[in-house]
Amino acid sequence: MQSIRKETGIRNTAILLIHCPDKQGILAAVTEFLNENHGNIIHLDQHVDHEEVIFYMRVEWELEKFTIPREKIADYFQTLIAQKFAIKFSLHFSDKRLRMAVFVSTMSHCLFDILARYTAGDWETEIPLIISNHDTLRPVAKSFGIDFHLIEKNSANKAQQELKEIEILKQYNIDFVVLARYMQVLSDQFVESFPNRIINIHHSFLPAFAGAKPYHAAHERGVKIIGATSHYVTADLDAGPIITQDIVRISHIDNVGSLIRKGRDLEKIVLSEAVYKHLQRKILVYNNRTVVFN
Amino acid sequence: MQSIRKETGIRNTAILLIHCPDKQGILAAVTEFLNENHGNIIHLDQHVDHEEVIFYMRVEWELEKFTIPREKIADYFQTLIAQKFAIKFSLHFSDKRLRMAVFVSTMSHCLFDILARYTAGDWETEIPLIISNHDTLRPVAKSFGIDFHLIEKNSANKAQQELKEIEILKQYNIDFVVLARYMQVLSDQFVESFPNRIINIHHSFLPAFAGAKPYHAAHERGVKIIGATSHYVTADLDAGPIITQDIVRISHIDNVGSLIRKGRDLEKIVLSEAVYKHLQRKILVYNNRTVVFN
Amino acid sequence: MQSIRKETGIRNTAILLIHCPDKQGILAAVTEFLNENHGNIIHLDQHVDHEEVIFYMRVEWELEKFTIPREKIADYFQTLIAQKFAIKFSLHFSDKRLRMAVFVSTMSHCLFDILARYTAGDWETEIPLIISNHDTLRPVAKSFGIDFHLIEKNSANKAQQELKEIEILKQYNIDFVVLARYMQVLSDQFVESFPNRIINIHHSFLPAFAGAKPYHAAHERGVKIIGATSHYVTADLDAGPIITQDIVRISHIDNVGSLIRKGRDLEKIVLSEAVYKHLQRKILVYNNRTVVFN
Amino acid sequence: MQSIRKETGIRNTAILLIHCPDKQGILAAVTEFLNENHGNIIHLDQHVDHEEVIFYMRVEWELEKFTIPREKIADYFQTLIAQKFAIKFSLHFSDKRLRMAVFVSTMSHCLFDILARYTAGDWETEIPLIISNHDTLRPVAKSFGIDFHLIEKNSANKAQQELKEIEILKQYNIDFVVLARYMQVLSDQFVESFPNRIINIHHSFLPAFAGAKPYHAAHERGVKIIGATSHYVTADLDAGPIITQDIVRISHIDNVGSLIRKGRDLEKIVLSEAVYKHLQRKILVYNNRTVVFN
Repeated sequence: MQSIRKETGIRNTAILLIHCPDKQGILAAVTEFLNENHGNIIHLDQHVDHEEVIFYMRVEWELEKFTIPREKIADYFQTLIAQKFAIKFSLHFSDKRLRMAVFVSTMSHCLFDILARYTAGDWETEIPLIISNHDTLRPVAKSFGIDFHLIEKNSANKAQQELKEIEILKQYNIDFVVLARYMQVLSDQFVESFPNRIINIHHSFLPAFAGAKPYHAAHERGVKIIGATSHYVTADLDAGPIITQDIVRISHIDNVGSLIRKGRDLEKIVLSEAVYKHLQRKILVYNNRTVVFN
Repeated sequence: MQSIRKETGIRNTAILLIHCPDKQGILAAVTEFLNENHGNIIHLDQHVDHEEVIFYMRVEWELEKFTIPREKIADYFQTLIAQKFAIKFSLHFSDKRLRMAVFVSTMSHCLFDILARYTAGDWETEIPLIISNHDTLRPVAKSFGIDFHLIEKNSANKAQQELKEIEILKQYNIDFVVLARYMQVLSDQFVESFPNRIINIHHSFLPAFAGAKPYHAAHERGVKIIGATSHYVTADLDAGPIITQDIVRISHIDNVGSLIRKGRDLEKIVLSEAVYKHLQRKILVYNNRTVVFN
Repeated sequence: MQSIRKETGIRNTAILLIHCPDKQGILAAVTEFLNENHGNIIHLDQHVDHEEVIFYMRVEWELEKFTIPREKIADYFQTLIAQKFAIKFSLHFSDKRLRMAVFVSTMSHCLFDILARYTAGDWETEIPLIISNHDTLRPVAKSFGIDFHLIEKNSANKAQQELKEIEILKQYNIDFVVLARYMQVLSDQFVESFPNRIINIHHSFLPAFAGAKPYHAAHERGVKIIGATSHYVTADLDAGPIITQDIVRISHIDNVGSLIRKGRDLEKIVLSEAVYKHLQRKILVYNNRTVVFN
Repeated sequence: MQSIRKETGIRNTAILLIHCPDKQGILAAVTEFLNENHGNIIHLDQHVDHEEVIFYMRVEWELEKFTIPREKIADYFQTLIAQKFAIKFSLHFSDKRLRMAVFVSTMSHCLFDILARYTAGDWETEIPLIISNHDTLRPVAKSFGIDFHLIEKNSANKAQQELKEIEILKQYNIDFVVLARYMQVLSDQFVESFPNRIINIHHSFLPAFAGAKPYHAAHERGVKIIGATSHYVTADLDAGPIITQDIVRISHIDNVGSLIRKGRDLEKIVLSEAVYKHLQRKILVYNNRTVVFN
């Protein structure tokens, strides 16, 4: 179904994500570095956390006239700027399309939402791979022309099956993983293989209703809003850095069934927004929280 | 891709949508009528507009033990109740699956959202037909196993092509039409063939920014929220009865491109919610406004 | 400052709040009872919880031509209708102005919001009394012409001071209590004196961040939305039936100070909305959840 | 009632609001200018409009160690930086408390909301003056200890009365005017005396329902959301640069009365948020749109 994809012009830009102890002069130093090497800044967003005294920045500039070759940028930046301010940074190039794997179980709404955006060309990404512990959504994968691997898990074979998954992810050169209502907890070992590169959607406004069956718990508690939360997966269940959240109002006339129905729309939008921000390299994780740049 | 569809139990219920001049005793009369004929009410929502002195009601009851045969309900209700209170009503059966046609142009997000819900079995409906004035989305239709008809239109052939469309809609026994970002204005003649049975999505919070290019207009005006509106199509462009609306916050950093991107999520959710309400027979139109029952 | 109050016409209506095991015929029986005694229904909202098989209703009707005298309505309704369906009900008259006491500590935003609405005549209520454990807001009480009682509390004198408060509440014929950011936990004994008649505002979207310092906890967790929750106070801290909730979006640029600032607007609106619903007798509590009628 | 006001530490900072044609090096030049003169930047937010090729920035820095005396900053900045980049700028000092006048008619909710924040010390401002065309809210002004001037207007005396108002505003050294549901259109002459310094609240989501009686119009149109809009007043009615907007969901059960009730909460919050942003010098107006910095 890739024939409907629009051709989008890829930008030839570089992106720096930076954080360091806040000190006078960081912003001037970085912008001066780009400026004097003819890097035209097209986006810059910075923030100072005055409590923790940390400086955060995302800056994106055009490479066309930039006088430092792209393979040397990291080295030059480290030597000339980063070490002076104890800056930790990551460098990205916007013409590098990140490769995404989607993990699913039996629910299709998040998967369809992802594939619809992908097919429409809304996202600069490649999705070569879907992994599932059920065969239910194989027809969806097939119709979108994406490889589908069934990796069934039970308590006995989980560790072994995860090794198989990691192996497949490597074969496909996967950069990050999206858990699109994948109803399995990943082991610490798996999570550590993809630090801040596994995005999950949890069907509650965390930290409320972590764990299993949040809609049942929400109904039982009698809340008047329900929510959904996307976050990077860490070793602690549902406790990773939150990327995006949204809510919908409910009332006494809602039952668990209608919460599930209303929640589906929340889940897919919140998850896809997180994926979009990740693809744009707009997320910086620090102290188990995210800075999501504009 | 219909293999992922869940089997859902169809309810054997009847639904009455009622409006009439408000008078004492209507509610008692209707509920008494259902009650004494052993119709167990499972949903009832009523509203009195005290300004216009009109009574509105939606009531749904189980047919299993109802002593009036379904083909005689309308007649009995008219004779015994409706004429006494000058009630106008429509009678529906929840086991009748409404047949939907989707009209599209080149944008896929609303279509994918509709087909994803349909394929997942979220909606009690049949979607046998997609009509478009472009061939762009034919592969989507094909992959979901739905007939696709290309009916190209220009100012010269519009009237003739619409007749062809109406003919096809009849062939497919279509009950209602969903304009999923169909970028053509329908003629009065077409609209009158499907009164309150054509649902459109407009990409603004109507009545602001009716007509063409609402995101451009919103950006130009410098608004801080953008919206989307689903409505039944009437002869007046973008002026039909509003079914659902939603908004998203924006800021000065948004350009027309990001408004379009953010708007897509609004549009698909708002349109699908309207379709859902229509399928549930929860919408009653009166004086160019909707009563959307709970 | 009562001179700006508008004269509002008091409605001469009665209100029944009802719940009972759901059975066929309840709605018909109640509406028939009102109808045949010439009670014109002006609002009716009912709901059936199909999981717990419970019927809930709020019905309001005009007393002017109602043939049963108001002091006999409860008796007649109990005898003729309620006992037949095992209905539990409460009967209210809209010309009875409920008397509210406001408890405050040092923060003024909820108090001002309440008094502004009261002074403008937005609410049918009397507010003769403000109680506080600090003297800070005495000038506010004075300027609005409302009695202010300072009842200081510490761990040693709490039980005794609460008895004094209960005594004062009795003297002022108080019907219900609003805790407008009153930073003291009430004892079970106090709470039991006003079952479902103490409304609190908690500055988080419960059940997240119950207890002390929710904004600090929200910042620490890195959530992207914060909320506020109004609820009836029960013996369990922050666990009573939720009446209304609302949220506001935040981001990494917010610190605890800005959360507190943004939260103040949430708190006052959410609390005042709960008070409004309570004054309208639109809240029915069942199984630690609320039915909030339209 | 000023006794409840908290003492807040005033920051000794300067603020620059800047816009100019976008060119490489602006950000580096400005931050370098501050940096080399020992101005510690505590907030910086900048934005480039790539369509109109304009650079916008707000930067706030500490004056304590800044080597340029505050009375010379504008001159130095103009000479050394601004003329090089064709920058237009305004310079502000955060220890200068802006003086606000509030214009009201008979509705009190926005006025109370403003005075509550003022009294609580939430805002760095002085409110020495309330002007009204009705005497209704004089008691409110009095109880908050603020001068109240009744300036009645009719079509015959309007021009003359506005001159009187301008005279009073000068006497009180008023910096900006807040129209808190002031139901009078100001003349062009008045508006031009306070360019981008008169903040109005309109009770609709503009541009929908500009002009009189927007809630009636919203009800008539059958919208499912209503809104409120704060904006700077310009010569064109309800067409000035929008500062903040918010909405609330409504349904068919709302009548004009309940829209007015729900709208009051929107109006006061939206207006006060605009005033807060104005006080923080976070608003830059360009091409009849606002940049509202973080």
